[in-house]
Amino acid sequence: MTATMKAAVVREPGKISVEAVDRPEPGPDQVLVKVHAAGVCHTDLTALRGLVPLPLPLVLGHEGAGVVEAIGSGVTGLEAGDHVVLSITYGCGRCRQCQKGAYGLCEVGAPVALGGVLPDGASRLAKDGERLHHFLFQSSFAEYAVVPAACAVKIRKDAPLDVVCLLGCGAITGYGAVIRRAKVAPGDSVLIIGAGGVGLAAVMAARLAGANPIIVSDVNDDALALAREVGATHTVNVSTGKTAVGEAQRLTGSGVDFAFDAVGTSATIDEAFQSLCNGGEAVAIGLADFAATASVPVFNLIYEKRLTGTNNGSIRPHVDIPAAVDLFMEGRLPLDRLVTRRYDLDQVDTALADMDGGSGRGVIVF
Amino acid sequence: MTATMKAAVVREPGKISVEAVDRPEPGPDQVLVKVHAAGVCHTDLTALRGLVPLPLPLVLGHEGAGVVEAIGSGVTGLEAGDHVVLSITYGCGRCRQCQKGAYGLCEVGAPVALGGVLPDGASRLAKDGERLHHFLFQSSFAEYAVVPAACAVKIRKDAPLDVVCLLGCGAITGYGAVIRRAKVAPGDSVLIIGAGGVGLAAVMAARLAGANPIIVSDVNDDALALAREVGATHTVNVSTGKTAVGEAQRLTGSGVDFAFDAVGTSATIDEAFQSLCNGGEAVAIGLADFAATASVPVFNLIYEKRLTGTNNGSIRPHVDIPAAVDLFMEGRLPLDRLVTRRYDLDQVDTALADMDGGSGRGVIVF
Repeated sequence: MTATMKAAVVREPGKISVEAVDRPEPGPDQVLVKVHAAGVCHTDLTALRGLVPLPLPLVLGHEGAGVVEAIGSGVTGLEAGDHVVLSITYGCGRCRQCQKGAYGLCEVGAPVALGGVLPDGASRLAKDGERLHHFLFQSSFAEYAVVPAACAVKIRKDAPLDVVCLLGCGAITGYGAVIRRAKVAPGDSVLIIGAGGVGLAAVMAARLAGANPIIVSDVNDDALALAREVGATHTVNVSTGKTAVGEAQRLTGSGVDFAFDAVGTSATIDEAFQSLCNGGEAVAIGLADFAATASVPVFNLIYEKRLTGTNNGSIRPHVDIPAAVDLFMEGRLPLDRLVTRRYDLDQVDTALADMDGGSGRGVIVF
Repeated sequence: MTATMKAAVVREPGKISVEAVDRPEPGPDQVLVKVHAAGVCHTDLTALRGLVPLPLPLVLGHEGAGVVEAIGSGVTGLEAGDHVVLSITYGCGRCRQCQKGAYGLCEVGAPVALGGVLPDGASRLAKDGERLHHFLFQSSFAEYAVVPAACAVKIRKDAPLDVVCLLGCGAITGYGAVIRRAKVAPGDSVLIIGAGGVGLAAVMAARLAGANPIIVSDVNDDALALAREVGATHTVNVSTGKTAVGEAQRLTGSGVDFAFDAVGTSATIDEAFQSLCNGGEAVAIGLADFAATASVPVFNLIYEKRLTGTNNGSIRPHVDIPAAVDLFMEGRLPLDRLVTRRYDLDQVDTALADMDGGSGRGVIVF
């Protein structure tokens, strides 16, 4: 009889249920991980609602952390018992993008990240002979996950997995946008639009990098209060009539060196661009609307303003995730402040609804 | 009696006449230059036509080169007899932008570059008591020019002034866009849209930097033939139904690392962006339409594509202009191929009409 595990399965858009499915086995270059915790990220909601074209049924979850249970053939550098954060960034390490350091753009991984399979083209998930699909090479709303070895990032064993799991996607995306994509340096002025989990991680990273001022905009006073606690020097509630662009101009005189949009609509991307000083750079961190178009008045280009984005913070997973874990353990990157509540897997529905309601960032614990 | 000089004066949009005006004297931190040659650049046409708000009357011309005749008080590093290229980039050297290396964005110079005066707020040009205005701190369609000392870039004395004058604006803009703004490296793939003077200088710089392939698009077969002679590996005449984006994709498989738009409409800027590979960068070099807006499908930002522009090639004038002169003298930057015809100052009308008619880049010689 096949061993089973509990997993949160999406069989039709909008519906998620915890089922007993086959416990997977790792294939070549893959590892089996006993999941200890998995963050609930907005992209889980987007996927659940069918706003991204994904093959169903699939097992949701993409911010997992746990302990290596078994390794497949050919795996090097990992062994049973290792603690790992499961990164959504798969880098083959051999293609042109990987060797430029752009692992998130890996020519093997990026084209199939939403294809429901692992990079080798196959799924390892099933239930009684029925094929189930992977989500972002991970599917960590489950007791066990089979992931590509490249996605299992070894970390120190004393780090709390129910916090550092956030580095699988959201927290490292905000962190990397600041540290890796923009390369913010001490004294640079920064605007961060949106104080959700990704935006707050960007605030922490901006603080760590020595940015000043660190201006944060949102519509939620509680989120802005938290932003101040984790590093913002100034906050603006844009529901009061003030604007992010206006505050950026007022506080700096000439606009900010870097503006990060952690909301992802065309309106907020435009705001980020408009808030820049000459020579400044706007970085779109997330996308709420995949069909959006940003408008760039080209006159600004003569002033050397720049618009770009980032995929998962442009990180090198095996460099940046362990480094962020170490910084958390030293008390310099307060990732624990991002976690608002912990849930059992059976409460996954509630966890997703809470995130949707704006009450913050939950973590499923096993 | 005041000494006079011949100068090409614009008194109303669309009309230019060569008149005898007062020979100027240099003020503090300024130099008087005997102009030997001045390139005819498209921006002269834009200004002549009144498409940029400029105070009239003004003396046109902004690609001058000549010999220092006299220096004002406080000038260091220059003396009478020095050969100089007159750069449109004025850097005070002390503001935040200058000290970041962004001399084209100088907080003193950039705001007043189109104001008709020198950076000290005054004009040194006059005729019988009538105030005349400067153009881009230069006004080199005249026998003499008074320029800020920072704009007089000393070069070797054996360089032909009627060629290297192009480094005052157009040629260094295309060159700097590639070398300084994009920092193109050997093996990078490049698309250059537009094979006018600026685009061709970008082609030369891309060749010098080791780019491959170097794809150039234009509507003019003669311009494309010249592009191939100065470094393009592939050319596409977009009037034949082929597109720059299509050729970039076909030749590289994944899109180009860098795309340069040397035309400056929203359509060509969009093309440049669309031709990029993941992680690629589009650089708007010139602007034909100051009111244009570029549209960026934000989904591309997740793939870390980047849109930016450049002011005068993002050069450091006293580093890059002498370096480009040396490269020309060594035969590695064939700037002389850009010059189609030489004119006397009295023929300035014809020179501007020829440029407008697309017959290439003229130089006024004195």
